[in-house]
Amino acid sequence: MDNDVFQHHYPEDVSHCYGCGRLNDQGLHVQSRWDGEEAVATHVPDEKYTAVPGFVYGGLIASLIDCHGTGTASAAAYRMREREMGSEPPLRFVTGRLEVNYVAPTPMGVPLELRGTPTEVKEKKVVVDITMTAEGREVANGRVIAVLAPESMFSRSPKE
Amino acid sequence: MDNDVFQHHYPEDVSHCYGCGRLNDQGLHVQSRWDGEEAVATHVPDEKYTAVPGFVYGGLIASLIDCHGTGTASAAAYRMREREMGSEPPLRFVTGRLEVNYVAPTPMGVPLELRGTPTEVKEKKVVVDITMTAEGREVANGRVIAVLAPESMFSRSPKE
Repeated sequence: MDNDVFQHHYPEDVSHCYGCGRLNDQGLHVQSRWDGEEAVATHVPDEKYTAVPGFVYGGLIASLIDCHGTGTASAAAYRMREREMGSEPPLRFVTGRLEVNYVAPTPMGVPLELRGTPTEVKEKKVVVDITMTAEGREVANGRVIAVLAPESMFSRSPKE
Repeated sequence: MDNDVFQHHYPEDVSHCYGCGRLNDQGLHVQSRWDGEEAVATHVPDEKYTAVPGFVYGGLIASLIDCHGTGTASAAAYRMREREMGSEPPLRFVTGRLEVNYVAPTPMGVPLELRGTPTEVKEKKVVVDITMTAEGREVANGRVIAVLAPESMFSRSPKE
């Protein structure tokens, strides 16, 4: 496991997310890490995530932005508290609001790079602005308003 | 094929969408139809689309809202023109901007109902406001700003 990846620090019982859970074997496995003040993730979409032939499905793009956003929110929250990522109690964020602008058709078959900046970091709310590029060209951007997950979301006794 | 379903009228070469394409055998197959002035779609998420155990992944919710929105945009555009759905030239819409508010955790294992209202219908732009409920309770809402797909998106000679 790569300890630089935010999502690898999520507790086991909240690591089944289709977008970023390392324990979801059918999921997207979004992996985000710091690159200075920005968080970066790279993803090559599977061909089934087609919009029209040759182009990437917008719902997949929304999913990538969503999970890169909540991952970055979590990492920014640990950073603000000067705590080591993954230390207890967990700082896991969920999406309160997601906004995506589709700037240009996104070509299939090339790596998509997402770069996120935490533009507002409060105790229970983090806003992350994200730009997605394909071959250096902006194809989408978005904003994730992430809120600290309530303790009740953690079963602390996995159902499986 | 159910002719009331908007997506069943999409031309073959733009029916591979992961969210709503009838020709994508791994996709979600979102199916939208009129119920008076509203468009309605119902979907029961596969269990792989988990957020945390017991709850539906936000990226899937965004995908459902996205495809229900573009489908409704298409149907509203045909309706405005008093044209039969699916008649040539096709009026297929793509998403310019997607907004989703996650109102409450969405339970897994129950049908999700999406209801969309075209709140702005112009020649090349349709805005659709959507509410999603689970067991009668609002769990999410969103807005799709859909734009008429440019002719260049239609290959008119499918690649497969």
